[in-house]
Amino acid sequence: MKKENNAENMTRRQLIGRVAALGLVLSQNPYGRTTQAGGLPLTELDDPTKKLGVFPGKIGTRSTFEKLEKTTSQTSSRSPLQDFHGTITPSDLHFERHHGGVPVIDPERYELIIHGMVEKPMKFSLHDLKRFPSVSRISFLECSGNYRGGNEKLTPQQICGLTSQSEWTGIMLSTLFREVGLKPKASWFLAEGGDAAVMTRSIPISKGLDDAMIVYAQNGEAVRPEQGYPARLFLPGWEGNTSVKWIRRIEVSDAPFMTREETSKYTERVKDGKIRQFSVVMDARSIITFPTYPQVVERGWIEIRGIAWSGRGRVTLVEISVDNGKNWYPARLQEPVLNKAHTGFRFLWQWDGRETVIMSRVYDDTGYRQPFLKELQDARASRGGYHFNPVTPWRLKPDGSVVLADAVPRIRSNRDK
Amino acid sequence: MKKENNAENMTRRQLIGRVAALGLVLSQNPYGRTTQAGGLPLTELDDPTKKLGVFPGKIGTRSTFEKLEKTTSQTSSRSPLQDFHGTITPSDLHFERHHGGVPVIDPERYELIIHGMVEKPMKFSLHDLKRFPSVSRISFLECSGNYRGGNEKLTPQQICGLTSQSEWTGIMLSTLFREVGLKPKASWFLAEGGDAAVMTRSIPISKGLDDAMIVYAQNGEAVRPEQGYPARLFLPGWEGNTSVKWIRRIEVSDAPFMTREETSKYTERVKDGKIRQFSVVMDARSIITFPTYPQVVERGWIEIRGIAWSGRGRVTLVEISVDNGKNWYPARLQEPVLNKAHTGFRFLWQWDGRETVIMSRVYDDTGYRQPFLKELQDARASRGGYHFNPVTPWRLKPDGSVVLADAVPRIRSNRDK
Repeated sequence: MKKENNAENMTRRQLIGRVAALGLVLSQNPYGRTTQAGGLPLTELDDPTKKLGVFPGKIGTRSTFEKLEKTTSQTSSRSPLQDFHGTITPSDLHFERHHGGVPVIDPERYELIIHGMVEKPMKFSLHDLKRFPSVSRISFLECSGNYRGGNEKLTPQQICGLTSQSEWTGIMLSTLFREVGLKPKASWFLAEGGDAAVMTRSIPISKGLDDAMIVYAQNGEAVRPEQGYPARLFLPGWEGNTSVKWIRRIEVSDAPFMTREETSKYTERVKDGKIRQFSVVMDARSIITFPTYPQVVERGWIEIRGIAWSGRGRVTLVEISVDNGKNWYPARLQEPVLNKAHTGFRFLWQWDGRETVIMSRVYDDTGYRQPFLKELQDARASRGGYHFNPVTPWRLKPDGSVVLADAVPRIRSNRDK
Repeated sequence: MKKENNAENMTRRQLIGRVAALGLVLSQNPYGRTTQAGGLPLTELDDPTKKLGVFPGKIGTRSTFEKLEKTTSQTSSRSPLQDFHGTITPSDLHFERHHGGVPVIDPERYELIIHGMVEKPMKFSLHDLKRFPSVSRISFLECSGNYRGGNEKLTPQQICGLTSQSEWTGIMLSTLFREVGLKPKASWFLAEGGDAAVMTRSIPISKGLDDAMIVYAQNGEAVRPEQGYPARLFLPGWEGNTSVKWIRRIEVSDAPFMTREETSKYTERVKDGKIRQFSVVMDARSIITFPTYPQVVERGWIEIRGIAWSGRGRVTLVEISVDNGKNWYPARLQEPVLNKAHTGFRFLWQWDGRETVIMSRVYDDTGYRQPFLKELQDARASRGGYHFNPVTPWRLKPDGSVVLADAVPRIRSNRDK
C-alpha cells in the first residue's frame, strides 16, 4: 500500500514537474516568436521531447550546428561545394565576383536603357520589366576563372567554388529587342552594369535572341544584391562576367566594343603565343564533391558524389574511375537532366582501404569530353587561367584521408594575379 | 588659354575628388568584409557608380528593399506566395506547422531507430544515413489544413500559404527497409518525431516502399530546424504532417496505430455525418499569385501568374478564365513539369479595365480537375477544413484593385479551431 502511494505520488510529482518545466520555457523563453531553434544555446539539449520548442517565425534560420561559409577575397567569394547536397545553391552561398563591389540600387529608381542600332530607343523601369511575359529556368552560373590546383590540400570550394546554380526568373531579352526593334545591321550589343566598375561586355545579338534573359528573381525571391539586384543579364552557359549584374544599359551595334574586360582581361593564351578572345562558353566540367579534402572516409561502401555541367547543353554521361584512370564506369545521373545546368551524379563503390585515385569526367550532348589537366596544359601552353576545366583526381590514403591528386605546382587563376 | 587651364584644373580636381571619395569609403567602411549591400543605409544611394561597393562576404543577404516575411501563428507560418517568382521556396520562407515547437537536436546525438516487424531492428546515426545511396527531388510539401476564405481582403499567403517547394536530398526509405528486412505481415509503420509533441502518424508500407524518403538536405544545405533538422520523413504528395519532422523512430506493424493525429485530428467530415480517415494525398490545386490582393494593376497587358500542383502526379493542364468562368483557356506551363511539384503557369491577357473575375483550375495526370468551392462544400457538407482545394477566384475592380471573389462567410481551417 505504502509503496503504491509512493508510486502515485511520484507519478503526480513527475507530471507536475513536466508541466512546470513547459511553463517555464514558455514564460521565460528569451528568444521571442521570431527567433528560431538555430539560436538556442547548446546547453538546452538534454531531451528535446521534454520541452516546448520555439514557435514559428517570420523568417527561418540555419541550424547553428551547420557551418556554411564562402571563402572570400577582395573581389570574389566561393561556394562550399563539398558541403552541398543536390543542385540548388542557397542564395546566400552563391559565389560572387565583382569588379567594383556590390552597389546599392534603389529598385524604384532603377532603369534599363536600350539604344543604339534600334528603331525606338527605350527606358524600362523594374515595374515595366515585370509586366512582360516571364520565364524561369534552373541554370548554373560559373566564373571563367574557376580553377585552382597544384596543392594537395585544396577543397572543391577552393578548386571550383566559382560555380553556383539557381532557379532564375525574368524575361527573355528577345522580348525587349522586339519592343525596341533591331535595325538590320545590328549584330552585337554592349551590356553595361551600374556598379562602381561600370562593368561592360560585348555580346553577339545571336545570343541575345537565343536564350539571354534579364532576370529579376533567383530561387523564388528577388535577385540578391551580390548577384545583381534589382536586375541582371543572364546568359545561360556563358562565362559569368558576361551575365552583367546591375544591368543599366544595352547599346546595340554592328561590332564588338572592345571593352577593357574583353581585351586586357577574360582572354586566354593558346599555343604559339596567340590570345583567344570572346571565348565565352563554359565547357563541360565535373567535380567529385564527396569524398574530397578535408573529408575522412571509412573503408567499405562509399557513394562517390558530385556535380557535372556544360555551357553547351545537357550532360549525357559522367564516368567514374576508382583506379587512377585505368577503368571507367558510368555514374547515376539525377533526373531531370536540365540544359546548361548542374547535374548531380552518384556512384556506389566498395573501397578496400588501399591507396587509390578516384576521378570523374563528363561528356555533353555535343560529344565533348572533359579534358585531363595535361591535355589542357598542352593545348594552352599554360598551367592555368581562364576556362580551365580539367578532370579533378582525388587520392584516398589508407588512413581514409583524401587529398587532391594533381601533381603540378600550385597555380592561381589569371584573375588572382 | 585661361579657359583651357581652368578646364584642366577642374578635370584634375574632379579626378582627385573621386579617388579621395573611393579611399574614404574603403578606409571608413563600417560594414566590414562580411556585411552585404543589404545592410547599407539608404542615404548612400546617390550614384552607385561613383563609390566602391561592398566586398564579397562569407554569407550573402537579402536586399533591405525586399520585405519578405511569413505570417505566423503559435503553431504555423505561411509562405508569401504573392511575392514569389518561379517555384523554389527560399528555405527561410518555407511554411511551418509544428505541434510542439521546433526542437534543438544535436546531429551528433541524432538516431533513427527502426524496429517492430523487422528481421533485424537497427539504429542509424546521421552519419550512417548519409552513407547510403542518395537521391534528390524537387517536390512541394503542403499542410492538409491549407485553406482560408470568405473574406475578400485575403492574400494568396493567407489563403494558401501552407505550401512550399524545395529540392530535397536524402535516401529512399525502401533502402533502410531492405537493410532491416520487413517481415511478411508488415503492412503499416509508425513514424515518430523527436519534438515536444512526439508527433506520430501511421503510414502504409506501400508508401514507404514507393517514393518515401528520409531527407537530410533541402535546397542544397542541411534541412532547416523548422523543417525537421537533422532529418525528417518526406512523403511526396502526401499531407505535410505525415512527413514527420525530426524523425527518430519507425515501428513496423500489420495495422495502423490510431494515433491522436489520425483520430482526433487530420480527418474530415463528409456527407451523412461520416468521418474520412487517412485521407493523406493532396489533391490537385492551383492558385493565381498575380494579380491578387493587395496588388493593384493597370489596364492593358497583364501576365496572370501562379502555381499548380498535384499530390497524385504531374500537372497536365492549367486553364484560365478571365470572365468569371464562362470561357477557359490553357495557360503556359513552365518546363520541366515535375512529378508532385509546384508548376509555374502564365497567361498573357489584355484587360480592358472593366470589372471581371479571373480564376485558374488545374488538371492532373489522373484526369482529376480542381473543384469549385460549391462542389467541395456540397461533397463535404462543410464550408472548409482539411483537403479544401477550391478554385480561387479574384475580382479585378475598375480602379485596378484586386480582391478575393468567393462570397461565403469567412472560414478558418480545422486546425485553427
